[in-house]
Amino acid sequence: MPRYALKIEYDGAPFNGWQRQSGQPSVQEAVETALRRLEPDAPGIGAAGRTDTGVHATAQVAHCDLAKEWEPFRLSEALNYHLKPHPVAVVAAARVPEAFHARFSAVERRYFFRLVARRAPVTLDRGLVWQVRHALELTPMRLGAAHLVGHHDFTTFRSTMCQAASPVKTLDALSISEHPYPGGQEFRFSLRARSFLHNQVRSIVGTLERVGAGAWAPEDVKAALEAADRAACGPVCPPQGLYLCGVGYPDDPFA
Amino acid sequence: MPRYALKIEYDGAPFNGWQRQSGQPSVQEAVETALRRLEPDAPGIGAAGRTDTGVHATAQVAHCDLAKEWEPFRLSEALNYHLKPHPVAVVAAARVPEAFHARFSAVERRYFFRLVARRAPVTLDRGLVWQVRHALELTPMRLGAAHLVGHHDFTTFRSTMCQAASPVKTLDALSISEHPYPGGQEFRFSLRARSFLHNQVRSIVGTLERVGAGAWAPEDVKAALEAADRAACGPVCPPQGLYLCGVGYPDDPFA
Repeated sequence: MPRYALKIEYDGAPFNGWQRQSGQPSVQEAVETALRRLEPDAPGIGAAGRTDTGVHATAQVAHCDLAKEWEPFRLSEALNYHLKPHPVAVVAAARVPEAFHARFSAVERRYFFRLVARRAPVTLDRGLVWQVRHALELTPMRLGAAHLVGHHDFTTFRSTMCQAASPVKTLDALSISEHPYPGGQEFRFSLRARSFLHNQVRSIVGTLERVGAGAWAPEDVKAALEAADRAACGPVCPPQGLYLCGVGYPDDPFA
Repeated sequence: MPRYALKIEYDGAPFNGWQRQSGQPSVQEAVETALRRLEPDAPGIGAAGRTDTGVHATAQVAHCDLAKEWEPFRLSEALNYHLKPHPVAVVAAARVPEAFHARFSAVERRYFFRLVARRAPVTLDRGLVWQVRHALELTPMRLGAAHLVGHHDFTTFRSTMCQAASPVKTLDALSISEHPYPGGQEFRFSLRARSFLHNQVRSIVGTLERVGAGAWAPEDVKAALEAADRAACGPVCPPQGLYLCGVGYPDDPFA
């Protein structure tokens, strides 16, 4: 069966995450339902990142096997037709070798997180950012973040539900930029790693927010990491500011 | 009575525009209702730009008269409390002289417009951009736009419902920038003038989109302008990409 890679964008708000669960709406189910409109016997699909409830994606990657040879652009068009009215879109499709696996072939995941700091409630970005009502300082957040980059035991920044074999991961990049926002500030966190632990990004951002607010010192992040104890983590932040924005493969299927 | 200026952000989607109309939800009504929770006899308010149905604002300006002396920050907090759950927020408030009038004191209005060109339906930006399904060329749009900057009779780019005394206006700036967008392109149009005619921005953007698509030549925009004939206009584009993003006053009340 020919295999295809799909680059998928979605608004996570109406879904209980990527992964199919009985009785709950999921992005996976929405895509599989669209695939089965094309081929009723299409098998289930797998994705590079199993995003949680409410988490968005601009470039999730999944693969699917279809009986027919599809021209990739026509496949994306047909899937988008059947995905309506869900806020899910196939932004690119590509024919890939049988050995390609969206999850196991991936060598890099990229996430960004949007955090808005202002008093007035957000309106246009409702559901698209995490809002806090107090000002934040960029420099201490950057100092705190620097302690997390590299090869570490991330037990502190990992959900107790995490099923990964090891808490040791390499965080290749964690940068924070500040942007103008009407009546406030916006901070964008960009993270890159081969793979992430469950709730790792939200645990990191929630902790760094405490640093930006002045409640934690930057060195407290180092101490929390070294404690290798979930109880040492700051508050886990909510999901609506988080976006899976890229998955890297040795050969980019969409190049 | 002390007078206050309010800087207001809103998602235009659920409203029939700024202006109060009986039996239709409006932003003006939402703000007046919140004001009357503070002072039951608060008079009606006026705004700098009467945005149409579905048009957004990041910085609409209105003024209101209240019996009580309000500390401006407390006033904005109280209004935001009462504005819930509408997607409307007071991002700044200021005490202004009695002579200040949100509409008549304004010497400049600024709008931006977000246009996304890609095949796949937008998901995260649904309701926040105008989407077209074909590629657009930036350079011809810029050449077309250049014909519109300056002092002109804008009859072609004005709704037949427009109530302005004269179709002659000065468009001080009209710039277009291109931004990366997943699987496509985003174009941002920025416009600045003392005042705009009804549907002027949407008439201009809708016409320039035709130029970007190659259906019109840049010089056709000049010919359309010189025709001073509404029938010479390109299609008026939809409202959801349009944002009122600034109002200028000789003395900025929020400085």
